[in-house]
Amino acid sequence: MGKIASTPIKPLEILRKSIDKNIMVEVRGSKLYSGVLEGYDVYMNLVIKNAQETLGQKGSNVFQRLLVRGDNVIFVSPSLGDAS
Amino acid sequence: MGKIASTPIKPLEILRKSIDKNIMVEVRGSKLYSGVLEGYDVYMNLVIKNAQETLGQKGSNVFQRLLVRGDNVIFVSPSLGDAS
Amino acid sequence: MGKIASTPIKPLEILRKSIDKNIMVEVRGSKLYSGVLEGYDVYMNLVIKNAQETLGQKGSNVFQRLLVRGDNVIFVSPSLGDAS
Amino acid sequence: MGKIASTPIKPLEILRKSIDKNIMVEVRGSKLYSGVLEGYDVYMNLVIKNAQETLGQKGSNVFQRLLVRGDNVIFVSPSLGDAS
Amino acid sequence: MGKIASTPIKPLEILRKSIDKNIMVEVRGSKLYSGVLEGYDVYMNLVIKNAQETLGQKGSNVFQRLLVRGDNVIFVSPSLGDAS
Amino acid sequence: MGKIASTPIKPLEILRKSIDKNIMVEVRGSKLYSGVLEGYDVYMNLVIKNAQETLGQKGSNVFQRLLVRGDNVIFVSPSLGDAS
Amino acid sequence: MGKIASTPIKPLEILRKSIDKNIMVEVRGSKLYSGVLEGYDVYMNLVIKNAQETLGQKGSNVFQRLLVRGDNVIFVSPSLGDAS
Repeated sequence: MGKIASTPIKPLEILRKSIDKNIMVEVRGSKLYSGVLEGYDVYMNLVIKNAQETLGQKGSNVFQRLLVRGDNVIFVSPSLGDAS
Repeated sequence: MGKIASTPIKPLEILRKSIDKNIMVEVRGSKLYSGVLEGYDVYMNLVIKNAQETLGQKGSNVFQRLLVRGDNVIFVSPSLGDAS
Repeated sequence: MGKIASTPIKPLEILRKSIDKNIMVEVRGSKLYSGVLEGYDVYMNLVIKNAQETLGQKGSNVFQRLLVRGDNVIFVSPSLGDAS
Repeated sequence: MGKIASTPIKPLEILRKSIDKNIMVEVRGSKLYSGVLEGYDVYMNLVIKNAQETLGQKGSNVFQRLLVRGDNVIFVSPSLGDAS
Repeated sequence: MGKIASTPIKPLEILRKSIDKNIMVEVRGSKLYSGVLEGYDVYMNLVIKNAQETLGQKGSNVFQRLLVRGDNVIFVSPSLGDAS
Repeated sequence: MGKIASTPIKPLEILRKSIDKNIMVEVRGSKLYSGVLEGYDVYMNLVIKNAQETLGQKGSNVFQRLLVRGDNVIFVSPSLGDAS
Repeated sequence: MGKIASTPIKPLEILRKSIDKNIMVEVRGSKLYSGVLEGYDVYMNLVIKNAQETLGQKGSNVFQRLLVRGDNVIFVSPSLGDAS
Protein backbone atom coordinates (compact mmCIF):
# COMPACT_ATOMS: atom_id res chain seq x y z
CA MET A 1 0.00 0.00 0.00
CA GLY A 2 2.09 2.86 -1.31
CA LYS A 3 1.70 6.19 0.45
CA ILE A 4 2.80 8.12 -2.65
CA ALA A 5 0.24 7.70 -5.39
CA SER A 6 1.70 6.55 -8.69
CA THR A 7 0.09 7.29 -12.06
CA PRO A 8 -2.92 5.01 -12.56
CA ILE A 9 -2.59 2.39 -15.30
CA LYS A 10 -5.15 2.50 -18.09
CA PRO A 11 -6.74 -0.97 -18.31
CA LEU A 12 -6.19 -1.30 -22.07
CA GLU A 13 -2.49 -0.57 -21.49
CA ILE A 14 -2.30 -3.99 -19.89
CA LEU A 15 -3.39 -5.49 -23.19
CA ARG A 16 -1.00 -3.38 -25.24
CA LYS A 17 1.92 -4.41 -23.05
CA SER A 18 0.93 -8.07 -23.23
CA ILE A 19 1.25 -8.37 -27.01
CA ASP A 20 3.47 -11.38 -27.84
CA LYS A 21 3.40 -12.46 -24.22
CA ASN A 22 1.55 -15.16 -22.35
CA ILE A 23 -1.83 -14.29 -20.88
CA MET A 24 -4.58 -16.16 -19.12
CA VAL A 25 -8.18 -15.24 -19.91
CA GLU A 26 -11.32 -16.22 -18.08
CA VAL A 27 -14.41 -16.37 -20.26
CA ARG A 28 -18.05 -16.61 -19.13
CA GLY A 29 -19.00 -20.21 -18.51
CA SER A 30 -16.01 -20.90 -16.22
CA LYS A 31 -13.57 -21.37 -19.06
CA LEU A 32 -9.91 -20.43 -18.93
CA TYR A 33 -7.68 -19.87 -21.96
CA SER A 34 -3.93 -19.46 -21.78
CA GLY A 35 -1.75 -18.56 -24.74
CA VAL A 36 0.12 -15.73 -26.42
CA LEU A 37 -1.80 -12.49 -27.01
CA GLU A 38 -1.57 -11.56 -30.68
CA GLY A 39 -4.11 -8.75 -30.83
CA TYR A 40 -7.02 -6.92 -29.20
CA ASP A 41 -9.36 -3.97 -29.76
CA VAL A 42 -11.23 -1.52 -27.54
CA TYR A 43 -14.12 -3.99 -27.11
CA MET A 44 -11.61 -6.40 -25.51
CA ASN A 45 -11.97 -8.78 -28.43
CA LEU A 46 -8.78 -10.82 -28.14
CA VAL A 47 -6.66 -12.86 -30.55
CA ILE A 48 -4.77 -15.63 -28.76
CA LYS A 49 -2.15 -17.93 -30.28
CA ASN A 50 -1.75 -21.54 -29.10
CA ALA A 51 -4.72 -21.10 -26.82
CA GLN A 52 -5.14 -23.89 -24.32
CA GLU A 53 -8.68 -24.18 -23.02
CA THR A 54 -9.45 -25.48 -19.55
CA LEU A 55 -13.01 -26.14 -18.40
CA GLY A 56 -13.06 -27.11 -14.74
CA GLN A 57 -12.54 -30.86 -14.67
CA LYS A 58 -13.53 -31.50 -18.28
CA GLY A 59 -9.99 -31.69 -19.73
CA SER A 60 -8.64 -29.26 -22.27
CA ASN A 61 -8.37 -28.36 -25.97
CA VAL A 62 -5.69 -26.44 -27.85
CA PHE A 63 -6.47 -23.93 -30.61
CA GLN A 64 -3.78 -22.68 -32.94
CA ARG A 65 -5.49 -19.32 -32.95
CA LEU A 66 -8.58 -18.06 -31.15
CA LEU A 67 -10.65 -14.90 -31.54
CA VAL A 68 -12.50 -14.38 -28.25
CA ARG A 69 -15.41 -11.96 -28.25
CA GLY A 70 -14.82 -9.22 -25.67
CA ASP A 71 -18.34 -9.48 -24.28
CA ASN A 72 -17.49 -12.80 -22.76
CA VAL A 73 -14.21 -11.82 -21.12
CA ILE A 74 -14.24 -11.76 -17.32
CA PHE A 75 -10.57 -11.10 -16.72
CA VAL A 76 -7.19 -11.09 -18.45
CA SER A 77 -4.04 -11.82 -16.51
CA PRO A 78 -0.55 -11.30 -17.92
CA SER A 79 1.71 -14.19 -16.96
CA LEU A 80 4.29 -13.89 -14.20
CA GLY A 81 7.54 -12.44 -15.43
CA ASP A 82 5.93 -11.02 -18.53
CA ALA A 83 4.12 -8.07 -17.06
CA SER A 84 6.17 -4.91 -16.76
CA MET B 1 7.06 -15.46 -26.03
CA GLY B 2 8.78 -13.23 -28.54
CA LYS B 3 11.09 -10.60 -27.14
CA ILE B 4 10.62 -8.33 -30.16
CA ALA B 5 7.03 -7.09 -30.28
CA SER B 6 5.33 -7.67 -33.60
CA THR B 7 2.42 -5.56 -34.87
CA PRO B 8 -0.76 -6.51 -33.00
CA ILE B 9 -3.46 -8.25 -35.06
CA LYS B 10 -6.85 -6.57 -35.23
CA PRO B 11 -9.45 -9.13 -34.14
CA LEU B 12 -11.70 -8.59 -37.17
CA GLU B 13 -8.67 -9.26 -39.40
CA ILE B 14 -8.95 -12.86 -38.26
CA LEU B 15 -12.42 -12.99 -39.76
CA ARG B 16 -11.37 -11.28 -42.99
CA LYS B 17 -8.52 -13.75 -43.45
CA SER B 18 -10.80 -16.71 -42.74
CA ILE B 19 -13.18 -16.05 -45.62
CA ASP B 20 -13.59 -19.27 -47.66
CA LYS B 21 -11.72 -21.21 -45.00
CA ASN B 22 -12.79 -23.58 -42.27
CA ILE B 23 -13.61 -22.11 -38.89
CA MET B 24 -14.98 -23.39 -35.63
CA VAL B 25 -17.39 -21.18 -33.69
CA GLU B 26 -18.59 -21.55 -30.14
CA VAL B 27 -22.03 -20.11 -29.49
CA ARG B 28 -23.69 -19.46 -26.12
CA GLY B 29 -25.38 -22.58 -24.86
CA SER B 30 -22.31 -24.79 -25.33
CA LYS B 31 -22.81 -25.24 -29.05
CA LEU B 32 -20.02 -25.59 -31.57
CA TYR B 33 -20.35 -24.99 -35.30
CA SER B 34 -17.70 -25.86 -37.84
CA GLY B 35 -17.88 -24.95 -41.51
CA VAL B 36 -16.60 -22.51 -44.12
CA LEU B 37 -16.84 -18.80 -43.31
CA GLU B 38 -18.70 -17.04 -46.11
CA GLY B 39 -19.22 -13.62 -44.54
CA TYR B 40 -19.23 -11.47 -41.42
CA ASP B 41 -19.83 -7.90 -40.25
CA VAL B 42 -18.54 -5.66 -37.46
CA TYR B 43 -21.11 -7.10 -35.03
CA MET B 44 -19.50 -10.53 -35.56
CA ASN B 45 -22.64 -11.78 -37.29
CA LEU B 46 -21.29 -14.73 -39.26
CA VAL B 47 -22.37 -16.62 -42.38
CA ILE B 48 -21.17 -20.22 -42.34
CA LYS B 49 -21.47 -22.75 -45.17
CA ASN B 50 -21.96 -26.46 -44.47
CA ALA B 51 -22.17 -25.73 -40.78
CA GLN B 52 -21.98 -28.81 -38.62
CA GLU B 53 -23.48 -28.28 -35.19
CA THR B 54 -22.25 -30.15 -32.14
CA LEU B 55 -24.02 -29.93 -28.80
CA GLY B 56 -22.09 -31.78 -26.12
CA GLN B 57 -23.29 -35.38 -26.28
CA LYS B 58 -26.53 -34.67 -28.14
CA GLY B 59 -25.30 -35.58 -31.64
CA SER B 60 -25.08 -33.12 -34.52
CA ASN B 61 -26.96 -31.38 -37.33
CA VAL B 62 -25.69 -29.97 -40.61
CA PHE B 63 -26.93 -26.70 -42.11
CA GLN B 64 -26.22 -25.80 -45.73
CA ARG B 65 -25.90 -22.19 -44.64
CA LEU B 66 -26.16 -20.55 -41.24
CA LEU B 67 -26.40 -16.91 -40.18
CA VAL B 68 -25.19 -16.75 -36.57
CA ARG B 69 -26.03 -13.60 -34.61
CA GLY B 70 -22.82 -12.02 -33.31
CA ASP B 71 -24.25 -11.49 -29.84
CA ASN B 72 -24.10 -15.19 -29.23
CA VAL B 73 -20.56 -15.80 -30.42
CA ILE B 74 -18.07 -16.78 -27.72
CA PHE B 75 -15.09 -17.51 -29.91
CA VAL B 76 -14.08 -18.13 -33.52
CA SER B 77 -11.12 -20.33 -34.33
CA PRO B 78 -9.63 -20.60 -37.81
CA SER B 79 -8.79 -24.22 -38.64
CA LEU B 80 -5.25 -25.55 -38.50
CA GLY B 81 -3.38 -24.92 -41.72
CA ASP B 82 -5.86 -22.30 -42.84
CA ALA B 83 -4.82 -19.42 -40.65
CA SER B 84 -2.04 -17.28 -42.04
CA MET C 1 -11.86 -24.65 -48.84
CA GLY C 2 -11.40 -22.45 -51.88
CA LYS C 3 -7.88 -21.15 -52.49
CA ILE C 4 -9.21 -18.10 -54.38
CA ALA C 5 -11.07 -15.82 -51.98
CA SER C 6 -14.56 -14.91 -53.15
CA THR C 7 -16.36 -11.73 -52.09
CA PRO C 8 -17.57 -12.08 -48.49
CA ILE C 9 -21.34 -12.23 -48.01
CA LYS C 10 -22.90 -9.58 -45.80
CA PRO C 11 -24.90 -11.35 -43.09
CA LEU C 12 -28.08 -9.32 -43.66
CA GLU C 13 -27.90 -10.31 -47.35
CA ILE C 14 -28.84 -13.80 -46.21
CA LEU C 15 -32.07 -12.38 -44.82
CA ARG C 16 -32.80 -10.30 -47.92
CA LYS C 17 -32.33 -13.33 -50.15
CA SER C 18 -34.54 -15.47 -47.93
CA ILE C 19 -37.66 -13.33 -48.31
CA ASP C 20 -40.58 -15.57 -49.34
CA LYS C 21 -38.48 -18.65 -48.70
CA ASN C 22 -38.37 -21.19 -45.92
CA ILE C 23 -36.07 -20.50 -43.01
CA MET C 24 -35.34 -22.12 -39.69
CA VAL C 25 -34.67 -19.87 -36.71
CA GLU C 26 -33.26 -20.78 -33.33
CA VAL C 27 -34.41 -18.54 -30.50
CA ARG C 28 -33.00 -18.33 -26.97
CA GLY C 29 -34.56 -20.95 -24.76
CA SER C 30 -33.84 -23.82 -27.18
CA LYS C 31 -36.77 -23.08 -29.44
CA LEU C 32 -36.80 -23.60 -33.18
CA TYR C 33 -39.19 -21.93 -35.61
CA SER C 34 -39.54 -22.89 -39.25
CA GLY C 35 -41.66 -21.00 -41.74
CA VAL C 36 -41.54 -18.50 -44.59
CA LEU C 37 -39.61 -15.28 -44.00
CA GLU C 38 -41.86 -12.31 -44.73
CA GLY C 39 -39.74 -9.48 -43.38
CA TYR C 40 -36.81 -8.38 -41.26
CA ASP C 41 -34.95 -5.27 -40.16
CA VAL C 42 -31.38 -4.39 -39.16
CA TYR C 43 -32.00 -5.53 -35.57
CA MET C 44 -32.77 -9.02 -36.96
CA ASN C 45 -36.38 -8.68 -35.91
CA LEU C 46 -38.06 -11.26 -38.15
CA VAL C 47 -41.57 -11.77 -39.52
CA ILE C 48 -42.29 -15.43 -40.19
CA LYS C 49 -45.41 -16.87 -41.90
CA ASN C 50 -46.81 -20.27 -40.91
CA ALA C 51 -44.22 -20.53 -38.17
CA GLN C 52 -43.98 -23.98 -36.65
CA GLU C 53 -42.47 -23.95 -33.18
CA THR C 54 -40.49 -26.87 -31.83
CA LEU C 55 -39.32 -27.01 -28.22
CA GLY C 56 -37.15 -30.03 -27.61
CA GLN C 57 -39.53 -32.85 -26.74
CA LYS C 58 -42.49 -30.65 -25.78
CA GLY C 59 -44.38 -30.93 -29.09
CA SER C 60 -45.08 -28.00 -31.38
CA ASN C 61 -47.38 -25.05 -32.13
CA VAL C 62 -48.13 -23.30 -35.41
CA PHE C 63 -48.51 -19.52 -35.71
CA GLN C 64 -50.03 -17.95 -38.81
CA ARG C 65 -47.62 -15.07 -38.41
CA LEU C 66 -44.88 -14.43 -35.90
CA LEU C 67 -42.81 -11.34 -35.12
CA VAL C 68 -39.63 -12.56 -33.41
CA ARG C 69 -37.57 -9.97 -31.56
CA GLY C 70 -34.02 -9.91 -32.96
CA ASP C 71 -32.43 -9.91 -29.51
CA ASN C 72 -33.50 -13.49 -29.04
CA VAL C 73 -32.30 -14.86 -32.37
CA ILE C 74 -29.38 -17.27 -32.17
CA PHE C 75 -29.23 -18.30 -35.81
CA VAL C 76 -31.20 -18.21 -39.04
CA SER C 77 -30.78 -20.94 -41.61
CA PRO C 78 -32.22 -20.71 -45.12
CA SER C 79 -33.73 -24.04 -46.15
CA LEU C 80 -31.98 -26.40 -48.53
CA GLY C 81 -32.68 -25.57 -52.17
CA ASP C 82 -33.90 -22.10 -51.30
CA ALA C 83 -30.65 -20.33 -50.60
CA SER C 84 -28.89 -18.95 -53.64
CA MET D 1 -42.67 -20.72 -51.05
CA GLY D 2 -43.43 -18.03 -53.59
CA LYS D 3 -41.17 -17.89 -56.61
CA ILE D 4 -41.88 -14.17 -57.18
CA ALA D 5 -40.45 -12.14 -54.32
CA SER D 6 -42.98 -9.83 -52.69
CA THR D 7 -42.08 -6.65 -50.81
CA PRO D 8 -40.63 -7.54 -47.40
CA ILE D 9 -42.76 -6.60 -44.39
CA LYS D 10 -41.19 -4.29 -41.83
CA PRO D 11 -41.43 -5.98 -38.43
CA LEU D 12 -42.97 -2.97 -36.68
CA GLU D 13 -45.68 -2.92 -39.37
CA ILE D 14 -46.99 -6.09 -37.77
CA LEU D 15 -47.53 -4.15 -34.58
CA ARG D 16 -49.14 -1.18 -36.33
CA LYS D 17 -51.58 -3.48 -38.12
CA SER D 18 -52.41 -5.32 -34.92
CA ILE D 19 -53.74 -2.28 -33.07
CA ASP D 20 -57.18 -3.09 -31.63
CA LYS D 21 -56.74 -6.72 -32.56
CA ASN D 22 -55.91 -9.81 -30.58
CA ILE D 23 -52.28 -10.73 -30.17
CA MET D 24 -50.34 -13.33 -28.27
CA VAL D 25 -47.01 -12.31 -26.72
CA GLU D 26 -44.31 -14.51 -25.28
CA VAL D 27 -42.26 -12.88 -22.56
CA ARG D 28 -38.99 -14.09 -21.04
CA GLY D 29 -39.62 -16.58 -18.29
CA SER D 30 -41.94 -18.75 -20.40
CA LYS D 31 -44.96 -16.51 -19.96
CA LEU D 32 -47.63 -15.96 -22.57
CA TYR D 33 -50.02 -13.02 -22.67
CA SER D 34 -53.01 -12.80 -24.96
CA GLY D 35 -55.19 -9.73 -25.31
CA VAL D 36 -55.92 -6.73 -27.50
CA LEU D 37 -52.97 -4.58 -28.57
CA GLU D 38 -53.63 -0.97 -27.61
CA GLY D 39 -50.23 0.55 -28.25
CA TYR D 40 -46.53 0.04 -28.87
CA ASP D 41 -43.33 1.96 -29.51
CA VAL D 42 -40.06 1.34 -31.36
CA TYR D 43 -38.59 -0.47 -28.33
CA MET D 44 -41.44 -3.00 -28.64
CA ASN D 45 -42.91 -1.83 -25.36
CA LEU D 46 -46.49 -3.01 -25.66
CA VAL D 47 -49.82 -1.98 -24.15
CA ILE D 48 -52.25 -4.89 -23.98
CA LYS D 49 -55.92 -4.73 -22.94
CA ASN D 50 -57.59 -7.63 -21.11
CA ALA D 51 -54.28 -9.44 -21.00
CA GLN D 52 -54.60 -13.07 -19.97
CA GLU D 53 -51.36 -14.46 -18.57
CA THR D 54 -50.46 -18.11 -18.90
CA LEU D 55 -47.42 -19.59 -17.17
CA GLY D 56 -46.95 -23.19 -18.18
CA GLN D 57 -49.06 -25.21 -15.77
CA LYS D 58 -49.35 -22.54 -13.08
CA GLY D 59 -52.82 -21.29 -14.06
CA SER D 60 -53.53 -17.78 -15.30
CA ASN D 61 -54.23 -14.16 -14.32
CA VAL D 62 -56.11 -11.45 -16.18
CA PHE D 63 -54.97 -7.82 -16.26
CA GLN D 64 -57.31 -5.05 -17.44
CA ARG D 65 -54.30 -3.34 -18.96
CA LEU D 66 -50.66 -4.32 -19.15
CA LEU D 67 -47.56 -2.40 -20.17
CA VAL D 68 -44.95 -4.99 -21.17
CA ARG D 69 -41.35 -3.79 -21.40
CA GLY D 70 -39.99 -4.51 -24.89
CA ASP D 71 -36.76 -5.95 -23.57
CA ASN D 72 -38.61 -8.97 -22.35
CA VAL D 73 -40.60 -9.70 -25.51
CA ILE D 74 -39.62 -12.88 -27.33
CA PHE D 75 -42.33 -12.88 -29.98
CA VAL D 76 -45.64 -11.29 -30.87
CA SER D 77 -48.20 -13.21 -32.87
CA PRO D 78 -51.30 -11.58 -34.35
CA SER D 79 -54.32 -13.84 -33.89
CA LEU D 80 -55.76 -15.86 -36.72
CA GLY D 81 -58.22 -13.92 -38.81
CA ASP D 82 -56.94 -10.61 -37.51
CA ALA D 83 -53.68 -10.31 -39.39
CA SER D 84 -53.96 -8.83 -42.87
CA MET E 1 -61.80 -6.75 -31.23
CA GLY E 2 -62.80 -3.34 -32.52
CA LYS E 3 -63.32 -3.04 -36.25
CA ILE E 4 -62.60 0.71 -36.25
CA ALA E 5 -58.96 1.34 -35.37
CA SER E 6 -58.51 3.80 -32.51
CA THR E 7 -55.39 5.89 -31.96
CA PRO E 8 -52.61 3.70 -30.54
CA ILE E 9 -51.58 4.42 -26.95
CA LYS E 10 -47.97 5.31 -26.34
CA PRO E 11 -46.62 2.93 -23.69
CA LEU E 12 -45.18 5.68 -21.48
CA GLU E 13 -48.63 7.33 -21.48
CA ILE E 14 -49.74 4.43 -19.31
CA LEU E 15 -47.18 5.50 -16.75
CA ARG E 16 -48.09 9.18 -16.97
CA LYS E 17 -51.77 8.37 -16.42
CA SER E 18 -50.98 6.10 -13.50
CA ILE E 19 -49.33 8.79 -11.38
CA ASP E 20 -50.92 8.77 -7.89
CA LYS E 21 -52.75 5.58 -8.72
CA ASN E 22 -52.24 1.97 -7.78
CA ILE E 23 -50.06 -0.14 -10.02
CA MET E 24 -48.67 -3.64 -9.95
CA VAL E 25 -45.14 -4.20 -11.24
CA GLU E 26 -43.42 -7.45 -12.04
CA VAL E 27 -39.66 -7.36 -11.62
CA ARG E 28 -37.12 -9.94 -12.81
CA GLY E 29 -36.76 -12.73 -10.32
CA SER E 30 -40.52 -13.39 -10.10
CA LYS E 31 -41.20 -10.51 -7.75
CA LEU E 32 -44.36 -8.45 -7.73
CA TYR E 33 -44.70 -4.98 -6.22
CA SER E 34 -47.99 -3.19 -5.75
CA GLY E 35 -48.31 0.38 -4.57
CA VAL E 36 -48.95 3.95 -5.72
CA LEU E 37 -46.88 5.23 -8.64
CA GLU E 38 -45.16 8.45 -7.63
CA GLY E 39 -42.80 8.92 -10.54
CA TYR E 40 -41.07 7.43 -13.59
CA ASP E 41 -38.66 8.31 -16.37
CA VAL E 42 -38.07 7.19 -19.96
CA TYR E 43 -35.92 4.26 -18.77
CA MET E 44 -38.99 2.98 -16.88
CA ASN E 45 -37.28 3.62 -13.57
CA LEU E 46 -40.24 3.78 -11.22
CA VAL E 47 -40.92 5.38 -7.84
CA ILE E 48 -43.56 3.47 -5.89
CA LYS E 49 -45.13 4.51 -2.57
CA ASN E 50 -46.21 1.93 0.00
CA ALA E 51 -44.80 -0.81 -2.17
CA GLN E 52 -45.85 -4.27 -1.10
CA GLU E 53 -43.48 -6.96 -2.32
CA THR E 54 -44.65 -10.47 -3.07
CA LEU E 55 -42.22 -13.25 -3.92
CA GLY E 56 -44.11 -16.38 -4.83
CA GLN E 57 -44.70 -18.20 -1.54
CA LYS E 58 -42.01 -16.42 0.44
CA GLY E 59 -44.31 -13.90 2.15
CA SER E 60 -44.09 -10.15 1.64
CA ASN E 61 -42.38 -6.92 2.68
CA VAL E 62 -43.65 -3.35 2.59
CA PHE E 63 -41.47 -0.40 1.59
CA GLN E 64 -42.56 3.17 2.30
CA ARG E 65 -40.93 4.19 -0.95
CA LEU E 66 -39.17 2.17 -3.62
CA LEU E 67 -37.07 3.18 -6.61
CA VAL E 68 -37.15 0.28 -9.05
CA ARG E 69 -34.54 0.26 -11.81
CA GLY E 70 -36.25 0.12 -15.20
CA ASP E 71 -33.95 -2.59 -16.49
CA ASN E 72 -35.59 -5.06 -14.20
CA VAL E 73 -39.21 -4.23 -15.01
CA ILE E 74 -41.12 -6.93 -16.86
CA PHE E 75 -44.55 -5.35 -16.82
CA VAL E 76 -46.56 -2.58 -15.18
CA SER E 77 -50.28 -2.96 -14.71
CA PRO E 78 -52.53 -0.08 -13.63
CA SER E 79 -55.06 -1.29 -11.09
CA LEU E 80 -58.67 -1.91 -11.99
CA GLY E 81 -60.79 1.21 -11.78
CA ASP E 82 -57.77 3.47 -11.84
CA ALA E 83 -56.79 3.28 -15.48
CA SER E 84 -58.63 5.68 -17.76
CA MET F 1 -55.07 6.88 -4.13
CA GLY F 2 -55.11 10.64 -4.48
CA LYS F 3 -57.74 12.09 -6.79
CA ILE F 4 -55.72 15.25 -7.43
CA ALA F 5 -52.61 14.39 -9.42
CA SER F 6 -49.44 15.70 -7.82
CA THR F 7 -46.23 16.45 -9.73
CA PRO F 8 -44.49 13.17 -10.60
CA ILE F 9 -41.19 12.52 -8.82
CA LYS F 10 -38.13 12.00 -10.98
CA PRO F 11 -36.56 8.68 -9.96
CA LEU F 12 -33.06 10.12 -9.52
CA GLU F 13 -34.54 12.73 -7.15
CA ILE F 14 -35.04 9.87 -4.71
CA LEU F 15 -31.30 9.31 -4.75
CA ARG F 16 -30.47 13.00 -4.41
CA LYS F 17 -32.79 13.32 -1.40
CA SER F 18 -31.31 10.20 0.20
CA ILE F 19 -27.77 11.55 0.44
CA ASP F 20 -26.52 11.11 4.02
CA LYS F 21 -29.55 9.01 4.86
CA ASN F 22 -30.12 5.32 5.28
CA ILE F 23 -31.08 3.31 2.25
CA MET F 24 -31.62 -0.33 1.46
CA VAL F 25 -30.46 -1.63 -1.92
CA GLU F 26 -31.26 -4.91 -3.58
CA VAL F 27 -28.58 -6.16 -5.94
CA ARG F 28 -28.83 -9.00 -8.47
CA GLY F 29 -28.13 -12.31 -6.84
CA SER F 30 -30.63 -11.76 -4.01
CA LYS F 31 -28.32 -9.57 -2.00
CA LEU F 32 -29.45 -6.68 0.17
CA TYR F 33 -27.23 -3.83 1.36
CA SER F 34 -28.25 -1.27 3.94
CA GLY F 35 -26.20 1.74 4.85
CA VAL F 36 -25.86 5.49 4.36
CA LEU F 37 -25.93 6.78 0.77
CA GLU F 38 -22.83 8.88 0.16
CA GLY F 39 -23.04 9.34 -3.59
CA TYR F 40 -24.56 8.23 -6.91
CA ASP F 41 -24.49 9.03 -10.61
CA VAL F 42 -26.92 8.79 -13.52
CA TYR F 43 -26.02 5.12 -14.08
CA MET F 44 -27.26 4.43 -10.53
CA ASN F 45 -23.75 3.57 -9.43
CA LEU F 46 -24.02 4.03 -5.66
CA VAL F 47 -21.57 4.78 -2.86
CA ILE F 48 -22.76 3.37 0.46
CA LYS F 49 -21.15 3.94 3.87
CA ASN F 50 -21.23 1.24 6.55
CA ALA F 51 -22.90 -1.11 4.13
CA GLN F 52 -24.32 -4.21 5.76
CA GLU F 53 -24.74 -7.08 3.33
CA THR F 54 -27.44 -9.68 3.75
CA LEU F 55 -27.62 -12.77 1.55
CA GLY F 56 -30.72 -14.76 2.34
CA GLN F 57 -29.74 -17.07 5.19
CA LYS F 58 -26.00 -16.87 4.65
CA GLY F 59 -25.28 -14.29 7.38
CA SER F 60 -23.89 -10.83 6.69
CA ASN F 61 -20.78 -8.74 6.10
CA VAL F 62 -20.14 -5.08 6.79
CA PHE F 63 -18.18 -2.82 4.43
CA GLN F 64 -16.91 0.57 5.56
CA ARG F 65 -17.58 1.85 2.07
CA LEU F 66 -19.05 0.18 -0.99
CA LEU F 67 -19.25 1.24 -4.62
CA VAL F 68 -22.12 -0.73 -6.18
CA ARG F 69 -22.26 -0.83 -9.97
CA GLY F 70 -25.62 0.51 -11.16
CA ASP F 71 -26.15 -2.35 -13.59
CA ASN F 72 -26.72 -4.68 -10.71
CA VAL F 73 -29.19 -2.55 -8.77
CA ILE F 74 -32.73 -3.89 -8.63
CA PHE F 75 -34.22 -1.35 -6.25
CA VAL F 76 -33.26 1.36 -3.78
CA SER F 77 -35.46 2.09 -0.81
CA PRO F 78 -34.98 5.12 1.45
CA SER F 79 -35.43 4.16 5.08
CA LEU F 80 -38.56 4.98 7.03
CA GLY F 81 -38.42 8.40 8.56
CA ASP F 82 -35.58 9.51 6.33
CA ALA F 83 -37.38 10.05 3.05
CA SER F 84 -38.95 13.47 2.66
CA MET G 1 -27.20 9.76 9.60
CA GLY G 2 -26.01 13.31 9.26
CA LYS G 3 -28.66 16.03 9.48
CA ILE G 4 -26.58 18.45 7.42
CA ALA G 5 -26.24 17.18 3.86
CA SER G 6 -22.65 16.91 2.73
CA THR G 7 -21.55 17.06 -0.90
CA PRO G 8 -22.38 13.73 -2.62
CA ILE G 9 -19.40 11.62 -3.64
CA LYS G 10 -19.08 10.76 -7.32
CA PRO G 11 -18.81 6.95 -7.57
CA LEU G 12 -15.72 7.03 -9.78
CA GLU G 13 -14.02 9.22 -7.15
CA ILE G 14 -13.93 6.14 -4.97
CA LEU G 15 -11.81 4.44 -7.60
CA ARG G 16 -9.54 7.43 -8.08
CA LYS G 17 -8.89 7.64 -4.35
CA SER G 18 -8.21 3.92 -4.12
CA ILE G 19 -5.25 3.94 -6.51
CA ASP G 20 -2.31 2.16 -4.84
CA LYS G 21 -4.56 1.01 -2.03
CA ASN G 22 -6.18 -2.28 -1.18
CA ILE G 23 -9.63 -2.97 -2.58
CA MET G 24 -12.00 -5.90 -2.62
CA VAL G 25 -14.02 -6.53 -5.77
CA GLU G 26 -16.98 -8.80 -6.25
CA VAL G 27 -17.34 -10.16 -9.77
CA ARG G 28 -20.34 -11.96 -11.28
CA GLY G 29 -20.23 -15.63 -10.49
CA SER G 30 -19.73 -15.11 -6.74
CA LYS G 31 -16.03 -14.39 -7.02
CA LEU G 32 -14.13 -12.01 -4.80
CA TYR G 33 -10.76 -10.45 -5.64
CA SER G 34 -8.65 -8.50 -3.18
CA GLY G 35 -5.48 -6.66 -4.10
CA VAL G 36 -4.03 -3.24 -4.84
CA LEU G 37 -5.87 -1.08 -7.39
CA GLU G 38 -3.42 0.00 -10.08
CA GLY G 39 -5.82 1.49 -12.61
CA TYR G 40 -9.41 1.87 -13.84
CA ASP G 41 -11.44 3.58 -16.55
CA VAL G 42 -14.97 4.93 -16.87
CA TYR G 43 -16.32 1.45 -17.78
CA MET G 44 -15.07 0.26 -14.36
CA ASN G 45 -12.48 -1.93 -16.01
CA LEU G 46 -10.00 -2.45 -13.18
CA VAL G 47 -6.31 -3.32 -12.94
CA ILE G 48 -5.50 -5.11 -9.70
CA LYS G 49 -2.03 -6.04 -8.44
CA ASN G 50 -1.44 -9.19 -6.39
CA ALA G 51 -5.07 -10.12 -6.83
CA GLN G 52 -6.20 -12.93 -4.57
CA GLU G 53 -9.26 -14.73 -5.87
CA THR G 54 -11.77 -16.34 -3.56
CA LEU G 55 -14.61 -18.51 -4.89
CA GLY G 56 -16.90 -19.54 -2.07
CA GLN G 57 -15.41 -22.73 -0.69
CA LYS G 58 -13.28 -23.60 -3.71
CA GLY G 59 -9.98 -22.22 -2.39
CA SER G 60 -8.11 -19.33 -3.95
CA ASN G 61 -5.64 -18.26 -6.63
CA VAL G 62 -3.24 -15.34 -6.73
CA PHE G 63 -2.60 -13.27 -9.88
CA GLN G 64 0.36 -10.92 -10.10
CA ARG G 65 -1.80 -8.59 -12.14
CA LEU G 66 -5.42 -8.81 -13.22
CA LEU G 67 -7.48 -6.81 -15.70
CA VAL G 68 -11.14 -7.24 -14.70
CA ARG G 69 -13.74 -6.27 -17.28
CA GLY G 70 -16.08 -3.64 -15.80
CA ASP G 71 -19.20 -5.41 -17.05
CA ASN G 72 -18.66 -8.12 -14.51
CA VAL G 73 -18.06 -5.92 -11.49
CA ILE G 74 -20.78 -6.03 -8.84
CA PHE G 75 -19.11 -3.90 -6.20
CA VAL G 76 -15.75 -2.42 -5.23
CA SER G 77 -14.89 -1.84 -1.60
CA PRO G 78 -11.85 0.15 -0.47
CA SER G 79 -10.18 -1.56 2.47
CA LEU G 80 -10.58 -0.33 6.04
CA GLY G 81 -8.11 2.38 6.90
CA ASP G 82 -7.39 3.12 3.27
CA ALA G 83 -10.51 5.01 2.27
CA SER G 84 -10.39 8.73 2.99
